[in-house]
Amino acid sequence: MLNRQWVLARRPTGHICPDDFAYQEEAFEPAPLKPGEILLKSRVFRFAPAMRTWIKATSQFVPPMPLDRPVTGSCSAEVLASENPAYPVGAIVSAMIGWQDYAVVDPAKLRTPPRIKPAGVSIEDFESLLGGNSLTAYFGLLRIGEPNPGETVLVSGAAGSTGAMAAQIGKIVGCKVVGIAGGRDKCDWLVEACGLDAAIDYKAENVERRLGELCPEGVNVFFDNVGGAILDAAIEHMAPFGRVALCGQIGSYDEGDALAAGPRNMMRVIYWRLKLQGFLMFDFAAETAQAEADLRRWSEEGRLMHKVDLHHGFDQLPATFMRLFDGSNFGTLLLTND
Amino acid sequence: MLNRQWVLARRPTGHICPDDFAYQEEAFEPAPLKPGEILLKSRVFRFAPAMRTWIKATSQFVPPMPLDRPVTGSCSAEVLASENPAYPVGAIVSAMIGWQDYAVVDPAKLRTPPRIKPAGVSIEDFESLLGGNSLTAYFGLLRIGEPNPGETVLVSGAAGSTGAMAAQIGKIVGCKVVGIAGGRDKCDWLVEACGLDAAIDYKAENVERRLGELCPEGVNVFFDNVGGAILDAAIEHMAPFGRVALCGQIGSYDEGDALAAGPRNMMRVIYWRLKLQGFLMFDFAAETAQAEADLRRWSEEGRLMHKVDLHHGFDQLPATFMRLFDGSNFGTLLLTND
Repeated sequence: MLNRQWVLARRPTGHICPDDFAYQEEAFEPAPLKPGEILLKSRVFRFAPAMRTWIKATSQFVPPMPLDRPVTGSCSAEVLASENPAYPVGAIVSAMIGWQDYAVVDPAKLRTPPRIKPAGVSIEDFESLLGGNSLTAYFGLLRIGEPNPGETVLVSGAAGSTGAMAAQIGKIVGCKVVGIAGGRDKCDWLVEACGLDAAIDYKAENVERRLGELCPEGVNVFFDNVGGAILDAAIEHMAPFGRVALCGQIGSYDEGDALAAGPRNMMRVIYWRLKLQGFLMFDFAAETAQAEADLRRWSEEGRLMHKVDLHHGFDQLPATFMRLFDGSNFGTLLLTND
Repeated sequence: MLNRQWVLARRPTGHICPDDFAYQEEAFEPAPLKPGEILLKSRVFRFAPAMRTWIKATSQFVPPMPLDRPVTGSCSAEVLASENPAYPVGAIVSAMIGWQDYAVVDPAKLRTPPRIKPAGVSIEDFESLLGGNSLTAYFGLLRIGEPNPGETVLVSGAAGSTGAMAAQIGKIVGCKVVGIAGGRDKCDWLVEACGLDAAIDYKAENVERRLGELCPEGVNVFFDNVGGAILDAAIEHMAPFGRVALCGQIGSYDEGDALAAGPRNMMRVIYWRLKLQGFLMFDFAAETAQAEADLRRWSEEGRLMHKVDLHHGFDQLPATFMRLFDGSNFGTLLLTND
């Protein structure tokens, strides 16, 4: 077998570009599987902004993505061979096997065991509606934000894969929800298709002034995907005892190793008794089945829209990934391996 | 009667100085007390860093301290006359009557009702051991920081009135405790008298390097009185799921209207799942009796040292207050009105 790979060819110092990645092929003749191991074939790749942070020399949480190895990322893959009864041949699993065709993994040795696609769900839905982005939105909004009915929820990066889920879950639990997104199209979709109460186009509007107009009683829960100036503006409009679920800092991910500026007004954080809390979906693994069930039900009831930005072709992996950082991506970004 | 007052004469743009305050006297012939009112005579003034923030034009939480009115601050005062059965004549109460001799207040109309000094406690102990600074330490460390036995607690401004209490309560609940303070004397006192495991002299040592040496497994709870660069350094050494109880930002209080720089590394806050949370003691008013009982018991058991920096004379009010910001204050700063 031939195992195609896209590897990290060099560590970008500024914005990522095509030359940061290199295509290669290797002969792939796996040794007989050991007990517990499974052989996977990648089917649908999912792109998440966090991958950009793993590429940095300053990567936290995980060691910096190694050079000359397949780019680390999540995909749905098919079990081609198995020495693990929990993962039978033919099952589709979501796993971090990176940008390559094949991989042998031992689920017990992974940080989090691969999730198995439920019956009756397409691979695309598994990676979007039920994917890591949705789980991140679900746990971040509900467990960290703890919204109460009637409260005001603000979501940045609201038209993104994670943000749109967080915003709609806010509506489902009975909150007023305002989204921040880039461009009229995205804002219109949030209000018209997703049912948000309002959306702020950060490219065309003064975010802080609009927050004052749209949230005169303050924001109780802010689900922040962006960081930097957006976080700063939101803090100025948080209500007392407001909660900020810190999901990401996408505003700075594609800026070399620079960090976004942190929030300036810590005095307001103190006096308004705000809580700023980081989280990762992995911490809620025990609740994943419940989250999947809720997300499926809400979707079936027509209360949860999701948009897939679907691309095709292994050769398009780097170009598709870069769409996350130029604002052109709209929906969960997926690529089929064909 | 003559009512002496120190008023805010102008709003400082940089460091506070004596000319920002003005002494005045007014004839004080109070009208007959209305039902519920009490007449108070200030006995012991307590100085808290937060007062400096109320002076700023940018004051949050409370409106900026008005010009030409007595400086807002807390004191223990004696009830000279009363139309309120809950506050009998002769009682000593802790109230915000500002820098003046006399005031008529209606406890029901205050944000928080004045606390009454328990029997068997000196006024100095009531304002230090049982004062607002101690209650702030108690609630911030235990309710926001939620330290578990065996965890590592870090306290900045650790030799201050609030910090020393937070640090010692950390020891009492079974934690390893490291303090940050300015100067060898304060650091020695923290280790030798208060029983801290270690103290870092931020004036003479590299705080971040020392944190790495002293807390190799990371800080679980950071009680932060200082903000700015100290908060930044601490975040780099927080353990996963660490809690930061945001008590104050004293590092920037005496810098005009400028805010301290916020924390830079929000990516670490996310990936380490840190929680940064502001708080005020007022929010825990329902638990004050329990806190007072705990603080008294720990003190009687010899487990809770407290230091009073006691000054005398109404004319010394501004000069004493300024000691909070030049590093010369060591202990709860009090001034007797005589």
